[in-house]
Amino acid sequence: MFTLDRQGRGTLVDQIYEGVQGLIHVGHWPVGARLPSVRRLASDLDVSIFTVSSAYSRLVSDGVLFSRVGAGFFVALPKPEILNAEHPGAVQRPDCAANVVLNAVDLGRYAVPAGSGFLPEDWLEDAIPPAVVGRLMRQEVSISTPVSVMGLPLLREQIASRLANIRINAQPTQIVTTCGATHAFSLVSGMLLGPGDTVVVEEPGYMMHKAQLVKTGASIVSVPRMADGPDLDMLEAVAKQYRPKALVIQPVLHNPTGLTLSPACAYRLLMLAERYGFYVIEDDVFGSLCTERNLRLSSLDGLSRVFYISSFTKVLSPALRVGFVACPPAFCEPIIEAKILSVQHSSSLQETIVAHVLRSGRYQAHLSALRGRILRAHSAARLALSEVGVAFDGPPNDGLFLWGRLGAQVDIDGLIDAAFRDGIFLLRGTLFSVRGDFERHMRFNIGYSSDPRLCALLDRFRVGVASESMATDARARKRQA
Amino acid sequence: MFTLDRQGRGTLVDQIYEGVQGLIHVGHWPVGARLPSVRRLASDLDVSIFTVSSAYSRLVSDGVLFSRVGAGFFVALPKPEILNAEHPGAVQRPDCAANVVLNAVDLGRYAVPAGSGFLPEDWLEDAIPPAVVGRLMRQEVSISTPVSVMGLPLLREQIASRLANIRINAQPTQIVTTCGATHAFSLVSGMLLGPGDTVVVEEPGYMMHKAQLVKTGASIVSVPRMADGPDLDMLEAVAKQYRPKALVIQPVLHNPTGLTLSPACAYRLLMLAERYGFYVIEDDVFGSLCTERNLRLSSLDGLSRVFYISSFTKVLSPALRVGFVACPPAFCEPIIEAKILSVQHSSSLQETIVAHVLRSGRYQAHLSALRGRILRAHSAARLALSEVGVAFDGPPNDGLFLWGRLGAQVDIDGLIDAAFRDGIFLLRGTLFSVRGDFERHMRFNIGYSSDPRLCALLDRFRVGVASESMATDARARKRQA
Repeated sequence: MFTLDRQGRGTLVDQIYEGVQGLIHVGHWPVGARLPSVRRLASDLDVSIFTVSSAYSRLVSDGVLFSRVGAGFFVALPKPEILNAEHPGAVQRPDCAANVVLNAVDLGRYAVPAGSGFLPEDWLEDAIPPAVVGRLMRQEVSISTPVSVMGLPLLREQIASRLANIRINAQPTQIVTTCGATHAFSLVSGMLLGPGDTVVVEEPGYMMHKAQLVKTGASIVSVPRMADGPDLDMLEAVAKQYRPKALVIQPVLHNPTGLTLSPACAYRLLMLAERYGFYVIEDDVFGSLCTERNLRLSSLDGLSRVFYISSFTKVLSPALRVGFVACPPAFCEPIIEAKILSVQHSSSLQETIVAHVLRSGRYQAHLSALRGRILRAHSAARLALSEVGVAFDGPPNDGLFLWGRLGAQVDIDGLIDAAFRDGIFLLRGTLFSVRGDFERHMRFNIGYSSDPRLCALLDRFRVGVASESMATDARARKRQA
Repeated sequence: MFTLDRQGRGTLVDQIYEGVQGLIHVGHWPVGARLPSVRRLASDLDVSIFTVSSAYSRLVSDGVLFSRVGAGFFVALPKPEILNAEHPGAVQRPDCAANVVLNAVDLGRYAVPAGSGFLPEDWLEDAIPPAVVGRLMRQEVSISTPVSVMGLPLLREQIASRLANIRINAQPTQIVTTCGATHAFSLVSGMLLGPGDTVVVEEPGYMMHKAQLVKTGASIVSVPRMADGPDLDMLEAVAKQYRPKALVIQPVLHNPTGLTLSPACAYRLLMLAERYGFYVIEDDVFGSLCTERNLRLSSLDGLSRVFYISSFTKVLSPALRVGFVACPPAFCEPIIEAKILSVQHSSSLQETIVAHVLRSGRYQAHLSALRGRILRAHSAARLALSEVGVAFDGPPNDGLFLWGRLGAQVDIDGLIDAAFRDGIFLLRGTLFSVRGDFERHMRFNIGYSSDPRLCALLDRFRVGVASESMATDARARKRQA
């Protein structure tokens, strides 16, 4: 099998550790194969049981092997990999996405949740009047009947008619409701992707997508998000190299940059999807906050290879979890199956409420009011953050977020810790990267980011990019002195 | 690689189909390996491209290979296997669980949904008064705030106190709310199980569990459910042979048999779990319909290696999807992570409603009324079905279901088709088996099964087990004549 070099080329444990990996790599032991017992290998290699056992333990903790009590050691499934768009072939292991998500969602504890992904609470107060819900409970909600597995028919009709407004042609029979957009993404990504597949994401991009994709076992490769959409030359190189199964994109009000796909980029992107045979998962969760009629990929593609995902949780109420996916027709049944196996039905109470709010015209008025508030808050937040030196690269954006850059001299960990102690929630830019980039970036929620407590903190930490050169100058002066 | 026999041992396509499987089986091509191109293999074997292409297509549709556009054919991950408890080592492929589930859940179309898993609608009408919801919306529900990722604290406290009533000691910090029990089972099974693992289920057992377990990629092995619990000798043999990671059990009002675990069986089962190191997923979704204080595994084990799952959807309202899992403490964080990646948050609207119903005392009164109705309906349904000849083996059961056996002469497919045409939903017994057993069995919902339309249909089909011998006699007479 392999021989050991007792003249000092690494410890015996290291050599066994590497030897076993090498044999797995060349296919000597396929996934699921049982390895020689510790005792047997120790005897074959003439080393102690302890030596082999140490090497095996390290391989187990690396996820290369797994053990079953009483049965021995087996070759594990390869972990998903983070592929590298710039250096195809280079590979990174994903970090643990769990902490990212865990830390990002319990917002109640913060006085200034500047890293939040939700609209400020008071902006949503009038979205769903209690009296409306009371009336629906008396007249409309059938409390003792489960809803159809596809979702409430009335809601699916309302969604289809709203999609028609943004020029997406979807039949109610193509629409499956979910417990929010996260759930929709989990169903679609879990259905499309598995170990051995590759999926392309935008860099930067929404952190939850990344964590959910890691769970599918697919390898993840990123392409930069530019002002008018993903870097298409890079996307084509990646498509050639890795033959991805799917691309994940937020076309409109991209999270975290707030940028929106141009029609030309949308067209070329779909041509690439067609040529290289990948699906597109279009997440439009912020789309209804747009003041303009922006183009979606689904409008062009007609839900042929694009899955369209959105939700009413962000713009109506985080207390309701109602989202949906509009599928290419051939995928409706697998998505319904995935939904059944995940939650069986969705909630007819929630879906009835949303359907009636959509039908009442109240929704349109609510959205108009929200858009006005967002425009005003956006300007105020950008101004306030600019004043303490935060830089905004690229063209002006829109929507709930600002993607700011801090100076290279800033102690980001210290800043986030100090913010936490002051009840301020900040979200570091690396969370939006599959490769750990954007160390100097932060995503700011415009609803909270002109808060004087935040600005005072940032000022105290001298976060400005202008201070970069000053800090450099100071160091230079010190060196000269 | 392999040679073809042109002298008639099967078609060339069959031989390539088998040859490729053989080479994969012996590890010549590990999972993920690329196969020779169609053109190349055709040339090597001196056959037509069409022949190789047909064999590859069949291997793709069997799930042995997968193809990527432009890249060729690759060895797929092995599908999960249905292991055989009686003949360890023998293996079956699972059937497609999707249709089972799809067909079983859209109940609105049936006049007599005798196969339904839900309580009759009118039994739940008063469970959640509209006025209560209206008041909660005005006073309690924070419509613009997301709920904590573990679930609403008030609800988790109420659940902990209800669990204390059935002598399960769970802290609110061990309880994670979900979008129903199906969702809870999906989170727990997805977190615990993966390819390479084995899980034990009861035979017969709840069909949705089976479908969800297939999705994890784990192999499934079943042990018979006897009158007082799983067959423990078989369970021990299976534990020795397969070293399972987990056992799935419905201890109380088991679905479909309605039987309940005895304390002695519960104790021995936990000893086996301890000895062989497997976890137990205890699904107690019908537990609150019990008229007695039955013992749960979680009561004995103290949530050390048992996960306890239940829901309020069945007994309060199918329009709400609120369930939960009480976890061994070490698993709380992975379960919260799995919940976040699945649905991010649950619904504070739904959870506030359930928490207040639980706190109001209304819940207890509702359950008492339900139990009375179930007792009466149970007797009536058993009597009506017995009169048309349906047999009930084993001791008397309780709860929402009767597990009836029909005569061997009955054309089950014809009966189910005829029932469908008459607006009657019948659920065949094989759905509750991982091995396709229980062909003669059906699960009857007691709320609908004394309906004269059902009984008339069953009578017309002469389903009685007594008719078995009559049919045999008739055939015998015919042969003699």
